[in-house]
Amino acid sequence: MVSNQARQPDRADVPEVVVTRLPQYVRVLNRLLEEGIEVVSSQQLGAQLQVTPAQIRKDLSYFGRFGKQGRGYSVRHLHDRLRDILGLNSYWNVAVVGVGRLGRAILSYPGFTPDGFHLVAAFDTNEDVVGLQVGDLTVRSIDELEEVVSGQNISIAIVAVPVRFTQEVIDTLIDCGVRAILNYAPTSPQVHDGVRIRNIDPVIALQSMTYYLADSPEH
Amino acid sequence: MVSNQARQPDRADVPEVVVTRLPQYVRVLNRLLEEGIEVVSSQQLGAQLQVTPAQIRKDLSYFGRFGKQGRGYSVRHLHDRLRDILGLNSYWNVAVVGVGRLGRAILSYPGFTPDGFHLVAAFDTNEDVVGLQVGDLTVRSIDELEEVVSGQNISIAIVAVPVRFTQEVIDTLIDCGVRAILNYAPTSPQVHDGVRIRNIDPVIALQSMTYYLADSPEH
Repeated sequence: MVSNQARQPDRADVPEVVVTRLPQYVRVLNRLLEEGIEVVSSQQLGAQLQVTPAQIRKDLSYFGRFGKQGRGYSVRHLHDRLRDILGLNSYWNVAVVGVGRLGRAILSYPGFTPDGFHLVAAFDTNEDVVGLQVGDLTVRSIDELEEVVSGQNISIAIVAVPVRFTQEVIDTLIDCGVRAILNYAPTSPQVHDGVRIRNIDPVIALQSMTYYLADSPEH
Repeated sequence: MVSNQARQPDRADVPEVVVTRLPQYVRVLNRLLEEGIEVVSSQQLGAQLQVTPAQIRKDLSYFGRFGKQGRGYSVRHLHDRLRDILGLNSYWNVAVVGVGRLGRAILSYPGFTPDGFHLVAAFDTNEDVVGLQVGDLTVRSIDELEEVVSGQNISIAIVAVPVRFTQEVIDTLIDCGVRAILNYAPTSPQVHDGVRIRNIDPVIALQSMTYYLADSPEH
């Protein structure tokens, strides 16, 4: 297939910052599809994403040729190819570790399933929590992790445990075969090569904006 | 002051990606301080942050000279200077807009205050929610936004409203003088120059990792 020829050789060479932008491209393209828009220029895409048209063209060039000079991109084709490149046409089984207040909010968030992320298991160490029903899931003991992760083909985990347990939990998950971690604890856990981690941290996000406010007269 | 001489000319020229890394430097430096470590090399910092030592040196070079060749950085000095550069020695008053399930979780999150972010007001449009007590705050009507934002010197807002209202709410906040937005809705709102926005989006984060899993045999 042409698409695979264009894609496979590049996969490891694509800068991670480019990969992190692609899901946002998909989101914008999805909205354009819903609005019935069939063709989009790099200028229009760039305006939606607040990056330059040159950046858009450079990002996409890692994955082959999508647009024709002066004619813009086919929204449908680009959308479908980027979803394919990102692995979004698969279903992904996801475990949640830590069922405190935050873990419960995550388990009840309706936004994962429509995008193919199925929360299929929840774990905690607290005996008062293990066995409880949260949504469709019964909270399991962390001791069952290995069995469930391999049995349910889970490659992604969402970790919402206190900072002092985070690294240990993540190490255990990786030992059990998990290869991608979404971490909500305000810390930066270490993972070895071949494992991906993203940290969701509102304080870090706020702190990266105060830089721009720090010159204002009132501060 | 020397520190201001080193800092002011650079502020607008520093790439945003560098600024977004600085809070993570501060977090690591803070932990080193707690562990009683006084000097750190760019190699050690890089290992903690999973970036190269060269990247560390380049990032810091935007803000002046911090280390002496071969002697590493003073943890205390670097920590204090980065906090100052990021505006983290100020207190920031923050409004939360949207007091649904997510907004309540945000309002009850204990991690903002220790880092200088004070959630001082909460707003909603839903008449069933306005007037309720959530933690220390009484939920106010969105109609009071302008008065409260200027009266309480609020320059940052956390937005947790449904996608279809997000852009409108953000436009209103900016009209009222808010200059930094932390958005939790799964959309990419547009803001004009001079306003900063960060999106907290677990699905986008997950989607940027499946790229690396998509080659695995089972998918």
